[in-house]
Amino acid sequence: MHSPLPVLGGRRPGWWKMLAVAMYMALLACLQAQELQGHVSIILLGATGDLAKKYLWQGLFQLYLDEVGKGYSFSFHGAALTSTKQGQEFIAKVLESLSCPEDVAPGRCAELRGQFQQLSQYRHLRTSEDYMALSKDIEAQLQHRGLREAGRIFYFSVPPFAYADIARNINSSCRPGPGAWLRVVLEKPFGHDHLSAQQLATELGSFFQEKEMYRVDHYLGKQAVAQILPFRDQNRKALDGLWNRHHVERVEIIMKETVDAEGRTSFYEEYGVIRDVLQNHLTEVLTLVAMELPHDVSSSEAVLRHKLQAFRALRGLQKGSAVLGQYQAYSEQVRREQRKPDGFHSLTPTFAGILVHMDNLRWEGIPFLLMSGKALDERVGYVRILFRNQAYCAQNEKRWVADQSQCLPRQIIFYIGHGELGSPAVLVSQNLFRPSLPSKSWKEVEGRPGLHLFGRPLSDYYAYSPVREQDAYSVLISHIFHGRKDSFITTENLLASWVFWTPLLDSLAHEVPRLYPGGTENGHLLDFEFSGTQLRFSQQQLEQLVPGPGSAPKPSDFQVLQAKYRESPLISAWPEELIAKLAEDIEATAVRAVQRFGEFHLALSGGSSPVPLFEQLATRHYGFPWAHTHLWLVDERCVPLRDPESNFQGLQAHLLQHVRVPHYNVHPMPVHLHQRLCAEEDRGAQMYASEISALVTNSSFDLVLLGMGMDGHTASLFPQSPAGLEGTQLVVLTRSPSKPHERMSLSLPLINRARKVAVLVMGRMKREITMLVSRVGHEPKKWPISGVLPSSGQLVWYMDYEAFLG
Amino acid sequence: MHSPLPVLGGRRPGWWKMLAVAMYMALLACLQAQELQGHVSIILLGATGDLAKKYLWQGLFQLYLDEVGKGYSFSFHGAALTSTKQGQEFIAKVLESLSCPEDVAPGRCAELRGQFQQLSQYRHLRTSEDYMALSKDIEAQLQHRGLREAGRIFYFSVPPFAYADIARNINSSCRPGPGAWLRVVLEKPFGHDHLSAQQLATELGSFFQEKEMYRVDHYLGKQAVAQILPFRDQNRKALDGLWNRHHVERVEIIMKETVDAEGRTSFYEEYGVIRDVLQNHLTEVLTLVAMELPHDVSSSEAVLRHKLQAFRALRGLQKGSAVLGQYQAYSEQVRREQRKPDGFHSLTPTFAGILVHMDNLRWEGIPFLLMSGKALDERVGYVRILFRNQAYCAQNEKRWVADQSQCLPRQIIFYIGHGELGSPAVLVSQNLFRPSLPSKSWKEVEGRPGLHLFGRPLSDYYAYSPVREQDAYSVLISHIFHGRKDSFITTENLLASWVFWTPLLDSLAHEVPRLYPGGTENGHLLDFEFSGTQLRFSQQQLEQLVPGPGSAPKPSDFQVLQAKYRESPLISAWPEELIAKLAEDIEATAVRAVQRFGEFHLALSGGSSPVPLFEQLATRHYGFPWAHTHLWLVDERCVPLRDPESNFQGLQAHLLQHVRVPHYNVHPMPVHLHQRLCAEEDRGAQMYASEISALVTNSSFDLVLLGMGMDGHTASLFPQSPAGLEGTQLVVLTRSPSKPHERMSLSLPLINRARKVAVLVMGRMKREITMLVSRVGHEPKKWPISGVLPSSGQLVWYMDYEAFLG
Repeated sequence: MHSPLPVLGGRRPGWWKMLAVAMYMALLACLQAQELQGHVSIILLGATGDLAKKYLWQGLFQLYLDEVGKGYSFSFHGAALTSTKQGQEFIAKVLESLSCPEDVAPGRCAELRGQFQQLSQYRHLRTSEDYMALSKDIEAQLQHRGLREAGRIFYFSVPPFAYADIARNINSSCRPGPGAWLRVVLEKPFGHDHLSAQQLATELGSFFQEKEMYRVDHYLGKQAVAQILPFRDQNRKALDGLWNRHHVERVEIIMKETVDAEGRTSFYEEYGVIRDVLQNHLTEVLTLVAMELPHDVSSSEAVLRHKLQAFRALRGLQKGSAVLGQYQAYSEQVRREQRKPDGFHSLTPTFAGILVHMDNLRWEGIPFLLMSGKALDERVGYVRILFRNQAYCAQNEKRWVADQSQCLPRQIIFYIGHGELGSPAVLVSQNLFRPSLPSKSWKEVEGRPGLHLFGRPLSDYYAYSPVREQDAYSVLISHIFHGRKDSFITTENLLASWVFWTPLLDSLAHEVPRLYPGGTENGHLLDFEFSGTQLRFSQQQLEQLVPGPGSAPKPSDFQVLQAKYRESPLISAWPEELIAKLAEDIEATAVRAVQRFGEFHLALSGGSSPVPLFEQLATRHYGFPWAHTHLWLVDERCVPLRDPESNFQGLQAHLLQHVRVPHYNVHPMPVHLHQRLCAEEDRGAQMYASEISALVTNSSFDLVLLGMGMDGHTASLFPQSPAGLEGTQLVVLTRSPSKPHERMSLSLPLINRARKVAVLVMGRMKREITMLVSRVGHEPKKWPISGVLPSSGQLVWYMDYEAFLG
Repeated sequence: MHSPLPVLGGRRPGWWKMLAVAMYMALLACLQAQELQGHVSIILLGATGDLAKKYLWQGLFQLYLDEVGKGYSFSFHGAALTSTKQGQEFIAKVLESLSCPEDVAPGRCAELRGQFQQLSQYRHLRTSEDYMALSKDIEAQLQHRGLREAGRIFYFSVPPFAYADIARNINSSCRPGPGAWLRVVLEKPFGHDHLSAQQLATELGSFFQEKEMYRVDHYLGKQAVAQILPFRDQNRKALDGLWNRHHVERVEIIMKETVDAEGRTSFYEEYGVIRDVLQNHLTEVLTLVAMELPHDVSSSEAVLRHKLQAFRALRGLQKGSAVLGQYQAYSEQVRREQRKPDGFHSLTPTFAGILVHMDNLRWEGIPFLLMSGKALDERVGYVRILFRNQAYCAQNEKRWVADQSQCLPRQIIFYIGHGELGSPAVLVSQNLFRPSLPSKSWKEVEGRPGLHLFGRPLSDYYAYSPVREQDAYSVLISHIFHGRKDSFITTENLLASWVFWTPLLDSLAHEVPRLYPGGTENGHLLDFEFSGTQLRFSQQQLEQLVPGPGSAPKPSDFQVLQAKYRESPLISAWPEELIAKLAEDIEATAVRAVQRFGEFHLALSGGSSPVPLFEQLATRHYGFPWAHTHLWLVDERCVPLRDPESNFQGLQAHLLQHVRVPHYNVHPMPVHLHQRLCAEEDRGAQMYASEISALVTNSSFDLVLLGMGMDGHTASLFPQSPAGLEGTQLVVLTRSPSKPHERMSLSLPLINRARKVAVLVMGRMKREITMLVSRVGHEPKKWPISGVLPSSGQLVWYMDYEAFLG
């Protein structure tokens, strides 16, 4: 017979006693440690589902492996609606297949798996009674084993429609006792748009506190993604001067798939690529790259706060910020899987490229390109930060050396996985700096001759990959256990993301995506390029001669209509085109004025109509001579300039914030003097008039932009106004029938001295007054707008089809 | 025997008669045509010199070949100081070696060369009598042959010191008769700096009219350079949207030489690479690329006018706009060739990289990199316009196709010559557009497998080279003959170029250039990179452990010093570190203020000292809470706000232009009211005081930044000032001893209410007052700065080592 501890064979019996005592002490310490930290119950809801089978049980086992003997005791409850017998069989099978990391010896692995199996059980969980029973069982077990309860984790691996019931049951019947924590883990989708996400959040919020909820975006568990903040932190010194708009040329956040949606179209039809990948995964990655780095990256609270700030700095997306595609076979797959009629064509995008900008000092003007698609030429995910080339290399390019030449591309890539490299990695161009990575968990990648990535051979990079590749769910389950909330989506962050994406999704709802054949055949069909804030496919679409289904007539299908209104030129179009045309005309007028006179005097109206115009001018007119433009107000409400109601505040937020007009060329109306608003004796109107006289030749503005109210008012000149409709005053105080009543306004005589007057009228609500005013004569007392008639300048009406045609 | 005209053999004698008559008529027509256009005399001064031998005689012969039979008659006069006999022999030898283009048959060439030799003669030309004699000879010849005089060309191929005498002689004794033109051709150097160029121009201007002078920059005759404007014109449609800051990433204008200056150091020591190559050749090329394209590029007048505008848009260069190098053997060559002592080290640069920016809407922010040097790794010249990559390509880079992928580099290169291509060329990336070039003179370059240029194989370009390579002088001599003044340097353009270059040359006069070994050994030593408007070598200089001549200790060699001055904390450092520290402290103060009060009130001084501070804040402090910062002025000069002298204007240009402070948080001093400056009765000071009272709690600024004048003044509070040193006034009008005299200033009592006051003192000039003030007590009447002592706030002195230690 062999001794049970062969290496100790031959020792004296007294020695055994000592050993036994020592082991007893160790066991005591171990039990005390467990006593110290307490017991954790983990309930996996949907324990027999695909996700559970593929990742979650393995993740729980990994958690056990990592934590066993560190002071906690565990029990694992697989729960589902499946019958107890079937469920038990399923679980038994799954548990049998669990694996250990390479560095655990097979025997030890079998032992640990055995322990884990003993701690795991299946239970049928449906009614509130079931939940009560579960809770009682846990309590009984705790009492029986004399354990203190540390907390309970409920992992929701179930469809969202089941959330509410489960949440109610947990809250009412299955909360842990006092002093122990509750964590519920939620899987996406977290709503379909801002409204539904908010409803879902409100509902969950009625059952759980914010700190109890862990919303999973499994991308945050991917090793290369999880490394972004630690990398930025550990390489703070090298990155400090580089991580900003002066040095970064662009950021690409990419997830390409080769598979298509076949077999999943019922889900996919409702979501599409933006909701499926961009709104969550790629946006999360974006915030990790873009956020201000907290001093202490280990503080979940600081990370989450900075992340939220990054969300808030995102500039709103417009229709033109996106390009959409759909692989050719998709509609047929939908028809087949969902029994749609032959003529059915889906508009769901399976490919999207998005151009994101951030409105903060660090990133202003830098393009963040997000792209994802199915049926592409390769499967790969990465974040690529490309730095500007600001060097000139005095030698012939043949003599450039990778780690010395500043003319070779400089980039940092967080390689999420797959692709030609085949594993997660962090790559840093050798001509940037040698990065610091935690040597325990990241190792240098071995050479792979012939492998080129992002335009350079692998040997041009400092390249690191994880010592041990870990599944994202294992990483996240560990983070849940340790309460690292920054790896999860808080309600605030979730809603901030939907606030950002929902307007774009709405505006794209009826867009026809470009069809692509799939795979390598896509060629350059899906390449896209940007100019300012606009994105478009690089190749012109040739094939789509017959409009596809669901394609509403587009603005470009109609001509801009040119006609006459009140004997002056009228330009009419759909809103978007109308604004584009008006902005173009203003720029042309500005350029001409600056060429002739060296400056351009533009008087702008307030209110909401001009907002899209301001945005158009701010983001698409790079040639606008802002440095030589003077901005004047047509009218102002008697409120402080920084009041949200102030016309100037609108101008500030939508235009001035984005362009470079010299301070002294901006002329707000002096409605707030001596801490009073529009006091007659402060002579603000006279001051403004003399400022105009002093700076504007002949007091003739180059362009005055007006609107028209439903009562026929224009500027702040209302019907029956005692001032401003005639006479010599250039600027007047007036009263509006609506609040705030007090106003300051340019007078009609001053407006009529302008070289050009543009009147912008938009929306169905203006239809009646538009018709009325088309018929009346010169009756400014009744309809002030009818008094607009420049004495030697030009008047042009800009009306959208709704205002003009109704 | 063969018939002399074999093809006509067998005709009747009558036919011969007809032929003879026809030929007689043709001859008559030809002679009449000559009669019509008249006679041109070309006088080559310095006809026996190197340039004449190498290029000019051949150029004149080419002119003859091109123009013979087109209506002019010619005579060519080689003139020099050489004796008649020697000169004749020299000329005879040169004429014998003249060659024709490939497409002229040898026999025909010999015939034409014979004619040219007959029309050419040498003459000794020194005294005014010689010039008179020349003129008489020309007139006699004209009379003798019954020719009308068209004009005379004098080509000055002589050293500049000889210009004045020759010019005087031509003007007084050798002008053509009435109705005929005079053209004088001048070779560089055209002065050594702005002053000498102006003197030379004035002198020449006393002899010749502007239209008579043709200043040669032979680069303008190089075929690829001469093609720039025609290319821009013929590809106007494709380039229209591309040729601007939105699409161009950078422009490189490069001339690299492998030779060094050996044997020419006596010239080179006086000029150096900037005067030798950059001020003329590369600057000319720059203007051709950057200028607004005239509608009619064949109009010399329009081209020259636009060129001049381009010169005027050049942003002034600073010391930091250049990097300089000198090949290692240079000083030794100078010592040897000019018998300098052993210890002599030349500071003349043989390598320069320059960063140029243009202040206009088309090019604002785009780097133009100019580089030239001797003893480099290759001989090559080119202009490269690199376009921005604004595309994302959805496929793996392995599948990118050169003429389709917008992700491959897009560039246009005017290849001036030499290099790997070995000939002039125009290259356009195939993913840009297919260019149009005149097919008579430019042909497609044949494939050269394996040849890579600018990062791409030659096959990626549409590549064109001249059908017939032409020497630059031949091209220019033809342009002189045809009066194409746009290929030459007008006086205005010449002076504009010197206005641009002279300040840089002055500021670099004592700079020590980086030494480089020469040839391929230079490695990456001469690579340079830019950041903002600053240029620096990419590699840190390592070898120079012993400070070279003129190298001061560097900022990083010293710690920031903390001490006391006038019993308050003193922070002292080298300028760069001091500014960095002050900017950091201001940001920290701002962040704290915004956290506590929601806003930060910062009062800033004007003048030049704070400029680097503003730039530091604008470009390196991304976390600065600008949106919550109020900016106030400490003092202001009584000039309009947009006056370059205005403190506010400095703030606008160096800070406001780059950050996002809301309009209503910016508070310029109201020095300009009712079209008057600082009129007592406009009560501007009181207005500013009440604005401060209204917005700043307790009128206590969070931070006031002051300076100190050499007379001990601070803000605009000067010694013996009747106002502002005490009393209750917050803001006062004062008088400065220097211009502009009238000022507005915060008062000492107001300054002393601040929570924090920082005094920035920089430069050697402040040393004396710094020492003085360190010893005086509280004597604001004598030294206003001594009155700065915040009643409950903190005072901190920031002084650089030069001010503090001298």
